[in-house]
Amino acid sequence: MEKISVAVLGATGTVGQKFIVLLQGHPFFEIREVVASPRSAGKSYVDACKWKQDIPIPENIGKLIVKNTDQDLKAHILFSGLDSSVAGPVEEAYAHKGHLVISNSKNHRIDPDVPIIIPEINHDHLDIIKKQKYRGGIITNSNCSTMFLTMAMAPIYREFGIEAVQVTTMQAISGAGYPGVPSMDILGNVIPFIDGEEEKMESEPQKILGELADDHIVPAPITISAQCNRVPVFDGHTETLSIKLKNKVSLENIRKALREFKGLPQELDLPSAPELPLLLIDNQDRPQPARDVWLNRGMSTVIGRVRECPVLDIKMVIMGHNTVRGAAGAAILNAETVVKKGYI
Amino acid sequence: MEKISVAVLGATGTVGQKFIVLLQGHPFFEIREVVASPRSAGKSYVDACKWKQDIPIPENIGKLIVKNTDQDLKAHILFSGLDSSVAGPVEEAYAHKGHLVISNSKNHRIDPDVPIIIPEINHDHLDIIKKQKYRGGIITNSNCSTMFLTMAMAPIYREFGIEAVQVTTMQAISGAGYPGVPSMDILGNVIPFIDGEEEKMESEPQKILGELADDHIVPAPITISAQCNRVPVFDGHTETLSIKLKNKVSLENIRKALREFKGLPQELDLPSAPELPLLLIDNQDRPQPARDVWLNRGMSTVIGRVRECPVLDIKMVIMGHNTVRGAAGAAILNAETVVKKGYI
Amino acid sequence: MEKISVAVLGATGTVGQKFIVLLQGHPFFEIREVVASPRSAGKSYVDACKWKQDIPIPENIGKLIVKNTDQDLKAHILFSGLDSSVAGPVEEAYAHKGHLVISNSKNHRIDPDVPIIIPEINHDHLDIIKKQKYRGGIITNSNCSTMFLTMAMAPIYREFGIEAVQVTTMQAISGAGYPGVPSMDILGNVIPFIDGEEEKMESEPQKILGELADDHIVPAPITISAQCNRVPVFDGHTETLSIKLKNKVSLENIRKALREFKGLPQELDLPSAPELPLLLIDNQDRPQPARDVWLNRGMSTVIGRVRECPVLDIKMVIMGHNTVRGAAGAAILNAETVVKKGYI
Amino acid sequence: MEKISVAVLGATGTVGQKFIVLLQGHPFFEIREVVASPRSAGKSYVDACKWKQDIPIPENIGKLIVKNTDQDLKAHILFSGLDSSVAGPVEEAYAHKGHLVISNSKNHRIDPDVPIIIPEINHDHLDIIKKQKYRGGIITNSNCSTMFLTMAMAPIYREFGIEAVQVTTMQAISGAGYPGVPSMDILGNVIPFIDGEEEKMESEPQKILGELADDHIVPAPITISAQCNRVPVFDGHTETLSIKLKNKVSLENIRKALREFKGLPQELDLPSAPELPLLLIDNQDRPQPARDVWLNRGMSTVIGRVRECPVLDIKMVIMGHNTVRGAAGAAILNAETVVKKGYI
Repeated sequence: MEKISVAVLGATGTVGQKFIVLLQGHPFFEIREVVASPRSAGKSYVDACKWKQDIPIPENIGKLIVKNTDQDLKAHILFSGLDSSVAGPVEEAYAHKGHLVISNSKNHRIDPDVPIIIPEINHDHLDIIKKQKYRGGIITNSNCSTMFLTMAMAPIYREFGIEAVQVTTMQAISGAGYPGVPSMDILGNVIPFIDGEEEKMESEPQKILGELADDHIVPAPITISAQCNRVPVFDGHTETLSIKLKNKVSLENIRKALREFKGLPQELDLPSAPELPLLLIDNQDRPQPARDVWLNRGMSTVIGRVRECPVLDIKMVIMGHNTVRGAAGAAILNAETVVKKGYI
Repeated sequence: MEKISVAVLGATGTVGQKFIVLLQGHPFFEIREVVASPRSAGKSYVDACKWKQDIPIPENIGKLIVKNTDQDLKAHILFSGLDSSVAGPVEEAYAHKGHLVISNSKNHRIDPDVPIIIPEINHDHLDIIKKQKYRGGIITNSNCSTMFLTMAMAPIYREFGIEAVQVTTMQAISGAGYPGVPSMDILGNVIPFIDGEEEKMESEPQKILGELADDHIVPAPITISAQCNRVPVFDGHTETLSIKLKNKVSLENIRKALREFKGLPQELDLPSAPELPLLLIDNQDRPQPARDVWLNRGMSTVIGRVRECPVLDIKMVIMGHNTVRGAAGAAILNAETVVKKGYI
Repeated sequence: MEKISVAVLGATGTVGQKFIVLLQGHPFFEIREVVASPRSAGKSYVDACKWKQDIPIPENIGKLIVKNTDQDLKAHILFSGLDSSVAGPVEEAYAHKGHLVISNSKNHRIDPDVPIIIPEINHDHLDIIKKQKYRGGIITNSNCSTMFLTMAMAPIYREFGIEAVQVTTMQAISGAGYPGVPSMDILGNVIPFIDGEEEKMESEPQKILGELADDHIVPAPITISAQCNRVPVFDGHTETLSIKLKNKVSLENIRKALREFKGLPQELDLPSAPELPLLLIDNQDRPQPARDVWLNRGMSTVIGRVRECPVLDIKMVIMGHNTVRGAAGAAILNAETVVKKGYI
Repeated sequence: MEKISVAVLGATGTVGQKFIVLLQGHPFFEIREVVASPRSAGKSYVDACKWKQDIPIPENIGKLIVKNTDQDLKAHILFSGLDSSVAGPVEEAYAHKGHLVISNSKNHRIDPDVPIIIPEINHDHLDIIKKQKYRGGIITNSNCSTMFLTMAMAPIYREFGIEAVQVTTMQAISGAGYPGVPSMDILGNVIPFIDGEEEKMESEPQKILGELADDHIVPAPITISAQCNRVPVFDGHTETLSIKLKNKVSLENIRKALREFKGLPQELDLPSAPELPLLLIDNQDRPQPARDVWLNRGMSTVIGRVRECPVLDIKMVIMGHNTVRGAAGAAILNAETVVKKGYI
């Protein structure tokens, strides 16, 4: 098929750069426009951008002239990696103009008519786009730490029910963007606080696991308590979970549900879909971010140490790639779903 | 007063070295014998030891000839930093010979008649020594991660009751001794497993908070679930706690109970006692191991972020110095208590 | 003696904060004024400053109202930790008004009539202050990496002559201030470039080791080649040196010259003077920043591995505390020298 | 062509594991025998090995029964990653039995009739195998730090002559094998000593750049001075060089010689050959190990900051992957050369 033109909003930032890396040679999409702040607008991308990725700037992207966030765009699909300080009104304006904004920013996740999509779990929530006030639409992916948590919860919630979850995170520095965390704050240290992160983890999973009811989403009735920490790891968020089940089942049933979990992206064989959304590891000292973060091209949630919890019911360790499955990769998988499901 | 002669068992190891550092110029104790494995026995300490501390080997210690673990000793009080592979029978043999063994090893912590002492909490458990089968006696301090957990639990348990605790740890590399954790395993990484650690954290606090009943200790009826991780931090274990209270109280009451907690070491003004066993920090991003580990000479448990927990009742972050208050410093405080309370 | 009132310029920055820490309880000086940018001026110090030190803000300092850099000051001695983007004209203006500016900034180091003082080496250069165009005066300390290099060179240059030096540095992150080096750039990495650093190391030692000639300083005729790297170390710059001697001598003579080196601060027993400016370590794998940086309260240059160099003549490893002896501590030692030598 | 059976000596060690990873799907070679110490012999590889690589153990390798180092082998070509404590006699015994040992161990590098081969530089030295006392033969690759140094020296030496080199290394922890460097020694630290490393760097390049004279190699007359440091980097040795040229030339000529350097592996298009053995980077703060170590699949030496040196003539920064081009990858490229040149 002919490739679909897309634009990247916030193209010079950390997430924007990751969009450019992950969309190189993509079978559906081709970036033909890059959009950034007035400071960058009018320059060529290669001049405007402080590139921090492992591969060089793709030549065709480097030559693009950066557009301003108030300029008209030709592409229908816009990937947004805009900073949350500006994403709100900019994404809204483009949606009003008729574009479909696939956003990684947090701003519209809390809107009742904007879905947070994880296509393995709630692709049916995409239907709410038709009820949005926009000519186009806005869909979002979850916060990075929420992604892995919700992925691990989904099959357990669906099969056995979940009443409550306790989660403690150990999050990588790349999650804070660039320049992000000063080295003097994190070298040989733990920072037991990430602004706004616990609130997101305590509310987003319920919306994702919730039910679509006409023009809004009814959140799943689960209580979540999160404690978020930054640790000196480059890529990969590690999380320890304790889960209170609705219906008690054996560990073997839990492991089976996790191991066999698949969803629409696997059925449709979407280009960015991991073969298995959840990857169970047997070794008792895994998953580890430095070892396992690139399994399945960074698109799986890796799970280990599934065992009984004396306080709630079960506990486990989960880990995933925060800037791939936890950010840009999630948005791209959302866009692939939108295309294959015929929403555009 | 004239100083009391003491010996250090396992003197060449990590904990043994820490005993030597912390006992320099101690007002009660003077190390006059050092004991280690047959490999070291017969050599001078300076020749036998691969010294890894920040200060040089004290001159008087360096000249001591290392004794074997089967040799008779003159000192009554023996500080034991023996490796758990040998601590069991060696400590027992010395206790039978009449010595009081103040041990940091895990081996005898589970014996029903051996107390795990934190003098701020359960100095009355020392009475059980009289019921031990030894001419002398054995007392232990807790596992390092247990120490900070139990310290934070103690005033809450005493004043309001605790039903259950969830704890996730982020533990420093120095807790694994030397050579300990290979750098290839931990640089930029998290290891979500520490052998035997979760079991200790899930059983030791109940014994410490328990009641002395003639010749054994009745553990406190608290359910604990622990998830232990190693992180690339040099000194200082950080732990996130969630606590289910017996009697619901306001956060302000919890904070007050923590802030005002004091015990026997503070009353007796023992040389190693911190002014405050628990140190509350207000900044929302503290405690941090790299910043706060040496507060009160590494003898306090530092606490931050006391707040509501949606799943249990309250949550908080705690941190302490694993090789000081969590190991050698704890044993020394125990010995000071024993002396001042007249047990010897 | 009654304490001398001093002011700190750039008091809210990294070096400014270090001045405040190191001057606590100083026998000569008391900070009574703090000066910073217009953004901070008018606020109390505690409100204006993002404090990053290990100890809390001293109470008497926290209450001071921050003055603007164009306000008149009462103190005669001004310690300057101003950022180099503003230090030039601000320091000059205060010097014209009659103040003695003891600066850690690089701006005036290159002025022919401004000395770079290391009191163990060239306290006689202080005489040039009288020839300065200012009513008051400006004296500077060297760049942090230059400090340790010049300290190690001094006794060798004086006794045997030096023709050339090759130096490669491995510099700590604290040398870049706060927020400084982004963690994403340095975690598990080496950055082989520090802007302007090599130029400073290749020119400052000659001035310090030079001769005072009436109204200017004749640099010592030594050729220096520097290669500067940033490494993931918190405090402590490590440097490998190769030195071409003028007169060949035995390694034992070199070691003796280093070991016996003392200067005016040691003679006068100045409060911040290390007992030995150079500290030779015998262990073949030392000095190491994480182990040795606080020897002599961070005021010595630690030297190890003095040996033959097949290409030049001798090589060695040196290390020192970049924010203590390499910055604020150096300026304070300069001020102590100025006072004791009667320059004010 | 049909694949050539090969065996890996020391197959359970760090280098042995890397051989297994890099030889997966190799167009010339197939591992059919794995050899290790008596402790592992008789077990299946999967049971004998503490696997530490990013990919799982290849299935066909996992099932192989580990042979003892005194057993007869069927393969002609043996890749040796044996520890230097045993490599000497074991490699010799197999060479006497008729095998060609392609060794990464240091033991035989100093033998006058054993070549150290870098095929881009001195593939002609392979001819000396015929003069060896063995029925088979032994060829070695260089020490890892030597590799990048010699690669950078080669085109300059050939075109303009080199009199002397000063080199300071900042070496990754993976160079010390597993468990290797204890984390307590290297986290946030620099260790300015690596046992035996400086001696290798000061003697191996001369042999590699030397001339073959019948039955021995005449070393190139270059003086080298090395200073070796361990830094907290996972993979990638960084080195700063200063070079004294025989014939002075412009920097542009130096850069051109480096940029255009190619050798036999490039001509023959060997499977493991990098397109360019030397990769010049323009950015002033590169190469960096965490960013650039995997360029050209870890087989290039990356070079930056080529500039004048005030003491010698030119200086530069070089970096390469120590366990790929610096170890197992080097040996495999040697084996490919041997095969394509018809030595077997």
